[in-house]
Amino acid sequence: MATIETMSLVVVGSVAYDGVTTPAGKVDRMLGGACTYISLSASYFTKSHIVAVVGDDFAQEDVDLLASRGIGLEGLERVPGKTFFWAGVYSADMNDRETITTDLNVFASFSPKLPESYQSEPYLMLGNIQPALQNSVREQMNGLRLVGGDTMNYWINDFRAELLNTLKGWNFLLINDSEAKMLSGESNLQAAAARIRALGPKILVIKRGEYGATLFHDAGHFSVPGYLLTSLKDPTGAGDCFAGGFIGYLASRGVTVDSAPATDLARAVVYGSVMGSFCCEEFGVGRFRTLSRDEIEDRFQEFRAFTTF
Amino acid sequence: MATIETMSLVVVGSVAYDGVTTPAGKVDRMLGGACTYISLSASYFTKSHIVAVVGDDFAQEDVDLLASRGIGLEGLERVPGKTFFWAGVYSADMNDRETITTDLNVFASFSPKLPESYQSEPYLMLGNIQPALQNSVREQMNGLRLVGGDTMNYWINDFRAELLNTLKGWNFLLINDSEAKMLSGESNLQAAAARIRALGPKILVIKRGEYGATLFHDAGHFSVPGYLLTSLKDPTGAGDCFAGGFIGYLASRGVTVDSAPATDLARAVVYGSVMGSFCCEEFGVGRFRTLSRDEIEDRFQEFRAFTTF
Repeated sequence: MATIETMSLVVVGSVAYDGVTTPAGKVDRMLGGACTYISLSASYFTKSHIVAVVGDDFAQEDVDLLASRGIGLEGLERVPGKTFFWAGVYSADMNDRETITTDLNVFASFSPKLPESYQSEPYLMLGNIQPALQNSVREQMNGLRLVGGDTMNYWINDFRAELLNTLKGWNFLLINDSEAKMLSGESNLQAAAARIRALGPKILVIKRGEYGATLFHDAGHFSVPGYLLTSLKDPTGAGDCFAGGFIGYLASRGVTVDSAPATDLARAVVYGSVMGSFCCEEFGVGRFRTLSRDEIEDRFQEFRAFTTF
Repeated sequence: MATIETMSLVVVGSVAYDGVTTPAGKVDRMLGGACTYISLSASYFTKSHIVAVVGDDFAQEDVDLLASRGIGLEGLERVPGKTFFWAGVYSADMNDRETITTDLNVFASFSPKLPESYQSEPYLMLGNIQPALQNSVREQMNGLRLVGGDTMNYWINDFRAELLNTLKGWNFLLINDSEAKMLSGESNLQAAAARIRALGPKILVIKRGEYGATLFHDAGHFSVPGYLLTSLKDPTGAGDCFAGGFIGYLASRGVTVDSAPATDLARAVVYGSVMGSFCCEEFGVGRFRTLSRDEIEDRFQEFRAFTTF
């Protein structure tokens, strides 16, 4: 397990409580947040360390869950006040959701502080937060092998200059297709990808929800169809779990900017898809309470079986 | 070429003139119709014979195009009046279209008459027409190895009983995902597929537009992502070209109800995707004026390259 010890990943983003209503049920309050999902997902592939802030209401059982997956919590800052709370309601087909509540609480003044022990870690995954904050974290690190992250429509529209400045320093970007079109101003996916890659991140994954994902890189592109879930309970966090599987796998392979084999990148997209699919099977992070590495491998092989011709 | 001569396909459906407006341009009147697209596409894989009706305005150059691809025209009935005319306008992303004109003309009284020479052909592809008419054609044939077709929301909603009766006799059905949900009453794709397959067609292809297609059969399922087109001019006929590539390939392989290897079925879905992708590159049937079998094979290999991991 030497690889896992030496190729650690730093994950920055929100740790939150979520209230979620889907056609499959309703949970008033449960652990959520991009950093939570990314780090739990990545923990199956590599050692992860998180940078996040929570309030004094953050439950010990939630700390324990993260710790049980070996996630480094030195950068989990606890401050007076309440933890970020988000609540939303999903549409009948779960492809859309409406936000009901966004109480930023202690997250409103989140200024990521990187513990000294994190600064020389080789992998950095920046969850969806203000782009200038994402940049400030990257600048606190030295010796990065691979850095990238996620963003959203709000930053694309209202913080474009800061986002573009941040993207310059990224090796990879994970984004959904509507955001890719918004960021690039191109409706054709190939054209959108070319424009976005010219902004910085040479490794680009465009996520297409239930339809799968497409990776663009120097040597071409790779597409994987979506996994057909028989039981879809809650899609919250699926995109972040995708990110966690993707970067976690790349970290486990020791991939760098200068040495990113197409096969590793393609498999990272499949592992991302695998992790996103598991995430949807239970509310919140529920699936990660039981998920095993063997189940992940089995599903990876399922992807092979239903895509081979 | 013995296989191609002996494993012929009968294609039934509309032969029409279309007026199409897309973000890439506008054509007031050009050859179209499901039967046209299906038979042109299938002609790269197998001998096709069509059953359709046109008016006395049907141009010799359009007859010549079909003949140039070796398509059997004995069942192309010509009657007094005008050929079916359809006109539509596509949305900016070409995922939706609005019908501007539907002049059924001679197609309104289409009653497919099968030439005697067609009756013992082994493969039958029923384009999207009234389900009872589709059934009447099937009943005129004997010795079918594989029969199936396409349908649409109008028949699903307003002719459900006739459609269900027709589907009982089909081995395969090609349908898009919104139609699959409408027909089955299930929003989950796996559940929808199970219900539809129980209605008759054990081989089910659910087309998902730019996102690809998923095949369901006795041994499991297979998904292929969509081809990323760099130049998308006109999606009209793409679904029918998919159908033509799919059934054309199965016919070329001699697939039957009782002998339908999973690999042949999966490759048929890829060839369908290949043919659908070519269709979109020019207005109407324009791409088929130059398309070669080598180009088809090259794109099939491209699909392999961008889906292998």
